[in-house]
Parts: sequence; C-alpha cells; structure tokens
Amino acid sequence: MPVILDAKRGDIGSTAQHYSTEAFERYRADAVTLNPYLGRDSIQPFLDHADKGVILLCRTSNPGGADFQALDCGGQPLYLRVAETVARDWNANNNCALVTGATWPEELGKVRAVVGDMPLLVPGIGAQGGNVEAVLRHGLTHDGTGLLINSSRAILYAGKDERFAEAARAAADDLRLTINRCR
Amino acid sequence: MPVILDAKRGDIGSTAQHYSTEAFERYRADAVTLNPYLGRDSIQPFLDHADKGVILLCRTSNPGGADFQALDCGGQPLYLRVAETVARDWNANNNCALVTGATWPEELGKVRAVVGDMPLLVPGIGAQGGNVEAVLRHGLTHDGTGLLINSSRAILYAGKDERFAEAARAAADDLRLTINRCR
Repeated sequence: MPVILDAKRGDIGSTAQHYSTEAFERYRADAVTLNPYLGRDSIQPFLDHADKGVILLCRTSNPGGADFQALDCGGQPLYLRVAETVARDWNANNNCALVTGATWPEELGKVRAVVGDMPLLVPGIGAQGGNVEAVLRHGLTHDGTGLLINSSRAILYAGKDERFAEAARAAADDLRLTINRCR
Repeated sequence: MPVILDAKRGDIGSTAQHYSTEAFERYRADAVTLNPYLGRDSIQPFLDHADKGVILLCRTSNPGGADFQALDCGGQPLYLRVAETVARDWNANNNCALVTGATWPEELGKVRAVVGDMPLLVPGIGAQGGNVEAVLRHGLTHDGTGLLINSSRAILYAGKDERFAEAARAAADDLRLTINRCR
C-alpha cells in the first residue's frame, strides 16, 4: 500500500534536503506533497529521489485556492503555469504528480490538458463536497486512469462510536463503488 | 525573547486550524511563518490569534524564489500581489509581517513601498550572502525600524569544536554591530 505524506513542504534548498530525508528515510513515505511557491531549488532534493513521488500543489480544493492560484499570469492562471513548469522542467525522473481539487473539476480538466498522463491527486471528495462523476469526466487520461482520488475526513470520521472501523470501511467501499460506477 | 516558528505552513482551513494550535499552544511560539499559495482560509486561523504574529512568505531568498514569485500578474509580480493582499485584506488585527529575502534588496524596497510600516522578516544575510547595507537602505521604515534581520547557519555553525557557543555569540555580535553601523 503506497504511503503519501501530505506534508505540503516548501522551504529553501538546504532545508528541503533535510525534509526529503525526513519524508523518504525517517517516515519511509513513497511520495510527499510539496508547495511550489519557493521554486525549483526547494523541490530538487525531492525530485532527486527518482523512485519516490513528488506531488506539487497546483489548484487546491479549498475556498481560498483561487486567491493567488487563479491570478492571470500573461494569459494563463498561475496554477496552469505551475502545471506547465512541473510537466516541462521538473519531471525529468518521471516522478511528479499534481494536486488538483475535486471542487474545481473544469480547472482539473485544464490541468489534464497541459500535463498529459501525469497522475493527479484529487482531494475534495467527501467532506469538501466534490463530485466524483465530474472529476472523472474532466480528469481521466485516455486509458481511463491517472487519478488518485482522496477522501480523508468522510472516511476517518464516518462513525462516532466504537464501531468506527466498520463505518470507515463501509465509507471507503462506497466511494470505491461510486468511482468505478462512473468510469 | 520572541520566538518565531519558521514552519512555512500552508494547508486547507481545517488543517490550518490544527497547525495554529500547534504553533501557538503546543510550541508557544509568538509568531509563525506561512506560505500564502493556498489563500485566505489557509491563513485565517492564524490571523484570528490577534496577539500572535503571522509572517507570510512574499519574496524568498533562495535561487528559485523568482520561478513563480516574479511572474507578471497584470503588470505586477506575484510577490507584490501577495504583499498588497496581506496589507489590504489580511491585516485587520495588525499582526501580519512578510518574508522578503536579503538577497533581493531592490525587490525588498518595492515590498516596503506597498506595505507601509509592516515588519519585514529578512533571511539571507550570512550563509546566503545578502548585503546588510543594501537591505537597510531599501527596507527600513521612515523611523529607521521595521526589519527583523535573520541569520541562522552563519551563527549556528560559526564554530566547529567545543567552543561553538562562544563562536556563535561572536558571530551574532558581529552582525548586530554591522547592522547598527549601517543604520
């Protein structure tokens, strides 16, 4: 079972070096989420682990996600500039992915158009209200894959009593069935 | 002695709520650094602590800082849009500050022009090579204050042997004298 450390790190190169050791050696994660705002050298130590996944925040699922990510940068929103830069310049080891929230399925589709078959990590299903069918319609690759759809709180907190584990299993199963029904 | 937690957090509102508890209650920090990429709701739980400092990354000191921060957003670079947004919309409790690296003193001056007397946290002196005199010339407020100049590795690692504490003290003292000589 692959483990993604959703740490959203973003720091200067020397600190990023230590954070990459934390993520991949100390916690033995298979992939980690990172914030692109500090640019290339803040990401490089993670990229250098060619066998690990590097998942960059692109168009996030939260209400304030548009505050800066949607700003027009020469005819393109910032989040598409991030997507382009990752696909073109940062993905030499073919180990990059992008976070694109389920709450903005059309923007997720624009990211898909820019990045080809790159995997997209999609939070925002569940507690945040994203729609599975819209996510699949806009986000799937040509061969019907390419999406890591994430639900956290809707599964973790599905049950409130001592049967929380069964409730979580049922919620996860429900989501899996819903996804496969829409494919 | 005020404590700044340089955690560079940036996450959706529900997670930001817990990170603000971590910073201000668990670690009892007086201020914390945050990444603005996720927008307002990722910052709000910190802003609500009116007696604590909220320090947003604006123009960072590292080589890749320009990759996205310098992108033209409608005639202004992204980092100035961040500075404007913080000064105009996020600073209702007068508890915001900005990170503006010493390695880009002219851009630090542009930020100063946009944010009035808001404090600027300035890393990049020391190991990263920033120039104290240029930072003061571009960054001081009208009354000759407004800068928190930070040096980490040049002080922490000033000495390699068991007299490291004396070496660190001497390096810190040197920097203080240099700053005051340039004011």
